[in-house]
Amino acid sequence: MCKNHGVAYVKPGEVEVREIDYPKLALGDRKCHHGVILKIVSTNICGSDQHMVRGRTTAPEGLILGHEITGLVIEAGRDVEFIKEGDLVSVPFNIACGRCRNCKEGKTGICLNVNPARPGAAYGYVDMGGWVGGQSEYVMVPYADFNLLKFPDKDQAMEKIRDLTLLSDIFPTGYHGAVTAGVGPGSIVYVAGAGPVGLACAASCHLLGAAVVIVGDMIPERLAQAKSFGCETIDLRNKTPLADAIAEIVGVPEVDCAVDCVGFEAKGHGADADKEAPATVLNSVMDITRAGGSIGIPGLYVTGDPGGIDAAAKKGSLSIRLGLGWAKSHSFHTGQCPVMKYHRQLMQAILYDKVQIAKAVNVQVISLQESVQGYKDFDGGAAKKFVIDPHGLIPN
Amino acid sequence: MCKNHGVAYVKPGEVEVREIDYPKLALGDRKCHHGVILKIVSTNICGSDQHMVRGRTTAPEGLILGHEITGLVIEAGRDVEFIKEGDLVSVPFNIACGRCRNCKEGKTGICLNVNPARPGAAYGYVDMGGWVGGQSEYVMVPYADFNLLKFPDKDQAMEKIRDLTLLSDIFPTGYHGAVTAGVGPGSIVYVAGAGPVGLACAASCHLLGAAVVIVGDMIPERLAQAKSFGCETIDLRNKTPLADAIAEIVGVPEVDCAVDCVGFEAKGHGADADKEAPATVLNSVMDITRAGGSIGIPGLYVTGDPGGIDAAAKKGSLSIRLGLGWAKSHSFHTGQCPVMKYHRQLMQAILYDKVQIAKAVNVQVISLQESVQGYKDFDGGAAKKFVIDPHGLIPN
Amino acid sequence: MCKNHGVAYVKPGEVEVREIDYPKLALGDRKCHHGVILKIVSTNICGSDQHMVRGRTTAPEGLILGHEITGLVIEAGRDVEFIKEGDLVSVPFNIACGRCRNCKEGKTGICLNVNPARPGAAYGYVDMGGWVGGQSEYVMVPYADFNLLKFPDKDQAMEKIRDLTLLSDIFPTGYHGAVTAGVGPGSIVYVAGAGPVGLACAASCHLLGAAVVIVGDMIPERLAQAKSFGCETIDLRNKTPLADAIAEIVGVPEVDCAVDCVGFEAKGHGADADKEAPATVLNSVMDITRAGGSIGIPGLYVTGDPGGIDAAAKKGSLSIRLGLGWAKSHSFHTGQCPVMKYHRQLMQAILYDKVQIAKAVNVQVISLQESVQGYKDFDGGAAKKFVIDPHGLIPN
Amino acid sequence: MCKNHGVAYVKPGEVEVREIDYPKLALGDRKCHHGVILKIVSTNICGSDQHMVRGRTTAPEGLILGHEITGLVIEAGRDVEFIKEGDLVSVPFNIACGRCRNCKEGKTGICLNVNPARPGAAYGYVDMGGWVGGQSEYVMVPYADFNLLKFPDKDQAMEKIRDLTLLSDIFPTGYHGAVTAGVGPGSIVYVAGAGPVGLACAASCHLLGAAVVIVGDMIPERLAQAKSFGCETIDLRNKTPLADAIAEIVGVPEVDCAVDCVGFEAKGHGADADKEAPATVLNSVMDITRAGGSIGIPGLYVTGDPGGIDAAAKKGSLSIRLGLGWAKSHSFHTGQCPVMKYHRQLMQAILYDKVQIAKAVNVQVISLQESVQGYKDFDGGAAKKFVIDPHGLIPN
Repeated sequence: MCKNHGVAYVKPGEVEVREIDYPKLALGDRKCHHGVILKIVSTNICGSDQHMVRGRTTAPEGLILGHEITGLVIEAGRDVEFIKEGDLVSVPFNIACGRCRNCKEGKTGICLNVNPARPGAAYGYVDMGGWVGGQSEYVMVPYADFNLLKFPDKDQAMEKIRDLTLLSDIFPTGYHGAVTAGVGPGSIVYVAGAGPVGLACAASCHLLGAAVVIVGDMIPERLAQAKSFGCETIDLRNKTPLADAIAEIVGVPEVDCAVDCVGFEAKGHGADADKEAPATVLNSVMDITRAGGSIGIPGLYVTGDPGGIDAAAKKGSLSIRLGLGWAKSHSFHTGQCPVMKYHRQLMQAILYDKVQIAKAVNVQVISLQESVQGYKDFDGGAAKKFVIDPHGLIPN
Repeated sequence: MCKNHGVAYVKPGEVEVREIDYPKLALGDRKCHHGVILKIVSTNICGSDQHMVRGRTTAPEGLILGHEITGLVIEAGRDVEFIKEGDLVSVPFNIACGRCRNCKEGKTGICLNVNPARPGAAYGYVDMGGWVGGQSEYVMVPYADFNLLKFPDKDQAMEKIRDLTLLSDIFPTGYHGAVTAGVGPGSIVYVAGAGPVGLACAASCHLLGAAVVIVGDMIPERLAQAKSFGCETIDLRNKTPLADAIAEIVGVPEVDCAVDCVGFEAKGHGADADKEAPATVLNSVMDITRAGGSIGIPGLYVTGDPGGIDAAAKKGSLSIRLGLGWAKSHSFHTGQCPVMKYHRQLMQAILYDKVQIAKAVNVQVISLQESVQGYKDFDGGAAKKFVIDPHGLIPN
Repeated sequence: MCKNHGVAYVKPGEVEVREIDYPKLALGDRKCHHGVILKIVSTNICGSDQHMVRGRTTAPEGLILGHEITGLVIEAGRDVEFIKEGDLVSVPFNIACGRCRNCKEGKTGICLNVNPARPGAAYGYVDMGGWVGGQSEYVMVPYADFNLLKFPDKDQAMEKIRDLTLLSDIFPTGYHGAVTAGVGPGSIVYVAGAGPVGLACAASCHLLGAAVVIVGDMIPERLAQAKSFGCETIDLRNKTPLADAIAEIVGVPEVDCAVDCVGFEAKGHGADADKEAPATVLNSVMDITRAGGSIGIPGLYVTGDPGGIDAAAKKGSLSIRLGLGWAKSHSFHTGQCPVMKYHRQLMQAILYDKVQIAKAVNVQVISLQESVQGYKDFDGGAAKKFVIDPHGLIPN
Repeated sequence: MCKNHGVAYVKPGEVEVREIDYPKLALGDRKCHHGVILKIVSTNICGSDQHMVRGRTTAPEGLILGHEITGLVIEAGRDVEFIKEGDLVSVPFNIACGRCRNCKEGKTGICLNVNPARPGAAYGYVDMGGWVGGQSEYVMVPYADFNLLKFPDKDQAMEKIRDLTLLSDIFPTGYHGAVTAGVGPGSIVYVAGAGPVGLACAASCHLLGAAVVIVGDMIPERLAQAKSFGCETIDLRNKTPLADAIAEIVGVPEVDCAVDCVGFEAKGHGADADKEAPATVLNSVMDITRAGGSIGIPGLYVTGDPGGIDAAAKKGSLSIRLGLGWAKSHSFHTGQCPVMKYHRQLMQAILYDKVQIAKAVNVQVISLQESVQGYKDFDGGAAKKFVIDPHGLIPN
């Protein structure tokens, strides 16, 4: 039996690489004959991992992190019929059974059969069903026939693995934000946040034909990254009101639609840029989105936040200027991206060179050992997307 | 020239019928050759009028109320081409030019050309463009060719006028709430509020094929009204948690989708039923709507509320448990109903007896003079929809 | 091991009940550990079975018929996780794997993994994958967790089994026709054909809120059946042009949308009512559907028809007046209904008494032995839907 | 009063430039106070003009051609409120009142008030309402506030006028074909026809994010044009079956969706490439479109064709292999593009350099006098889009 190593959460601010169990086709007592074992080819560090590592959740010591997984099938359970050993596959971060009402409706982010606590599950995430994370060498993926996206040509896929690795989460997640905001040809869009999801969203807006994509953030390196692939940018530390900054770019102080790629750990704008202000993004996007526009909210909002700024925030309540949104007939679209809804099309866009998503989010490949430093750098605001290569398989 | 009388807002808690100007084909200096003068056949008192009359807005003394209008065309401006004198017509409460980007997209609730202050206008409403209200004998309707829905047969229409009068606002508004919540055949729906919009929404849910329509309110007469046409009901003054009350009806503590027909003047539930608690409805519908469900919000939320319970509420900010909605992948749909999107189909449903909307909301026809008492009774929670008949044209 | 009997196709015009193999969890060499064995509670004769029995297909001797199945699970394969022995379930007539691209998109009528010859499969149907039909005592259903709809309460379900049995095909199929035609509240609809699918479509139109449902056919009993639940009817043997007949009902010679519930064995209208004329229905619905309308086509059109009226018809080519449809901006929606998309909601509509579908299509319960006569009566135009009760389980 | 000249249809194969009346704000006796007079800046020759000029319609001698118009407002009727003298505007080729049921639903291609003969009208087209064409110096545009799209900045617009002139018809028309076919990010699309509409469709597919756009035609220059902006191409004169040619490009013999940009004057493929075969395109796209795919049909099909190959074709009937489409659950979307639904977004895509549509269709600017030759060259298969510049206003 092979050995296995993975990234464990130790305590707020600390992760470590440790030896872990080699995966079984089971989750505790629950048999997973429908599952496969993957030898992981790439597995990315995600901004939502940071919420746990910063101590903003109730994640327990020893939780193995990682929900952005691409790998080679090395063992398939007896109920796996179409996925085969040797297939190179992308794993959607949402675990889904493919058999419940929600999965049948394409809502794989809220599967009813994979998490006793609530609809929806993920690998290596607190309150998401207890499935072992995949920032490791090997991992088990249940309901493999349903969940996995097989790449049609392995050699071609390995050449584009830096792009394809983003299909497991942030590319579809950013894209979902854009789609739910109604982005299409000719749209003028504001994307709040230039972290990896924000950048993936901005690239998705371009893919969808947007005329102007404006990205706001407070970290100059991230804004520079956005600029590098054709976005307009706004530094939110500046005192210029957001509407005015937008007017400088497009001539009017509003956009067609907006995407919140920040979530609950938002900070204030301008003079308040150093204070956490969890409703800032939502309130500001209502301000600058034109009447009738939609607002996509892929940024994570939580039901409980031990580090919340006040009692309301600790239970996920925010002071939202809903009256403003109502006056403008806005609609709001929240929740985990159902990756399966989008990953095949986005794979095609990558394989046929219609999008340069790895460049957009500035992928940097690191080893499993380097992941500890990767977490630190990412938390410090590095304008990079760290992709862990646990077996040294990714070509330079 | 004919005389004209209308219902004027005097001060918080007081309206009166007074003589007013006979309408011109103009709004101040703005010529309205595209408008018509209507002899009003019916004009309804609306829950949103109550917000003004209760002093919860900045409505000025003397504002002539009324945005739910049905009437006979007695004069047509020189540029009106298709609507003719003698036509019996329903007036959408939203005033729309038919020529701007939003109107062309069907978003007539946020027309760009009828209100200098913001997108969207209405008759007789504060901050809605200054157009004279229609709780009166005569009123001017601009952009008549675009706005008006002509009834195909006047005699038939007068027989069903108690139903057809509801096409100007609350029937489409309730229907819009149901549609944006995703109600369809087989849906289990929760409708918050059994005022006229809530009841119209419940009747719309039935028309759309819903399997179960559960209506919550605190006024027994209104709940009895809901029960009268096949709804299940929940008295929110009870201490049973809402989810439990729902489980008693449908076996599970959740519904497929929900509609907020209450808005910002909401009260708490159970023990808090006598306290205003503006976010109660939204937070409670997130609690009981299943993951993946949509929430329609036709209930009014405002950008400024002089009578708000705290500083946040006064500017339209509410403490919303967005983290809960996010975890359940909810979407939220706000804003004025674009009446034109729905009124023709709903007219057909009335004319062909597929819906008994006047019965559902308990229409009571009153004279213009009786409207003062009508306002009082409605404010007291009467389970009635008051329809003013200023010329005594409505048959018994 | 139990014995099993089923309805076999013998030759054009002849079926018989014969002893057949008790089902295995396999299709030939293909293991189906994901399947279940059902004891059949009800199984309906379908109009599309008639195409085979009339010799209009290449169905081989001995083919066991039947794709409208409801039953009790008496054995579950080792990989079935959520469906349990004892469950009472509805079987969608389309067989689907739940794991391919099409199934993931909800297109279960064109599953890629269940029929080597083409996308899509069904039980007991020529060219549909070779799966054994279910007009029998026992049948095997593959991919049971994905395909089956479990009724929540068995006793309640058995009381409504005459309605619920229609969920396997014709109720969703008629509903799909209505939905793809764009039927909604207030619609004026023309339904071509008053066979069971036509009647189910008409009932679906009512459930969807249609204002007027006009049904055309040539068999007086079927038209009477349509009339019995509130439809308007047109006898197509009359010489009155269809448009005129419609104008007599709704005042104008056109409808909002139309549904073709007849398919390729259509006959001419009026003087041509006794001649087969396969494009008649499509050409006539283009004639009477208003510009901008949609046309739903659940009626079957085939790729090969040995009994076609000419060489073109024999290979499924019809002389269609597409220029007319184009001038009216029509859209056309064809194909097998993906039952799973609709059966849960329609079950709810049945369970909560929002639709009386068994009455609408005039269900008549017969024994397995009586099915031979049932085929004859149905072919003769009986205004009935025959439901076979192979074990005598259906209460009177 | 200014003089005016325009392109007149003389007889099959012949057009000429002649002096014509200066436009009035009227169509015969019908006053058009809602109209404007345009000084035409650019006006394009369209493939659908060719149908008339080839004698394939009942167009009368003297009909002034031209429905693709861009111009400067030089006079506005008294009911024009928002469009002003001096505005530079794009004219949708479909004339629409903005006040009927269809216009309110966004279906401006089938307006009910602009053509007594049938829904829908256009400038300078047979059976399209009698409105004077715009291949001239001046033209009248009715319902100007509704119909016209004003460019935000005249100088900027004149710089991009070669692109913007395509907003009046072929860019939206090609885009509409792509949208109704369901093209989006990652799609593999087949576009039948590399005339200007086909090329505009192909460019639209790219704008919409398609992964692969395959264009089929029989004219090498047109295919070279398609190749110039990244399309794959297939020469339909070759004997390779279309499915095989597609497989050579994408590895499988089918595409996700297809667009018919040819219409009723189609020719056979391969050995039949020199014979007219009006159903060829439709039948071939059903053959190569995957099950579940949609087929957009912006190519024109007519209700009467004096030059049709047989009696059926003369009345617009084609022998369509509908059985094949049905087996594959295809849907079909026909009709005039409602330009207004798309022109604003596409304008933004042009103004912000997201599409190079003039290059894609190979715009060639000619004078009004040169238009006679332009018609001839275009009929001969020139891979060019001819844009007439009647006042010499277009910069080099």
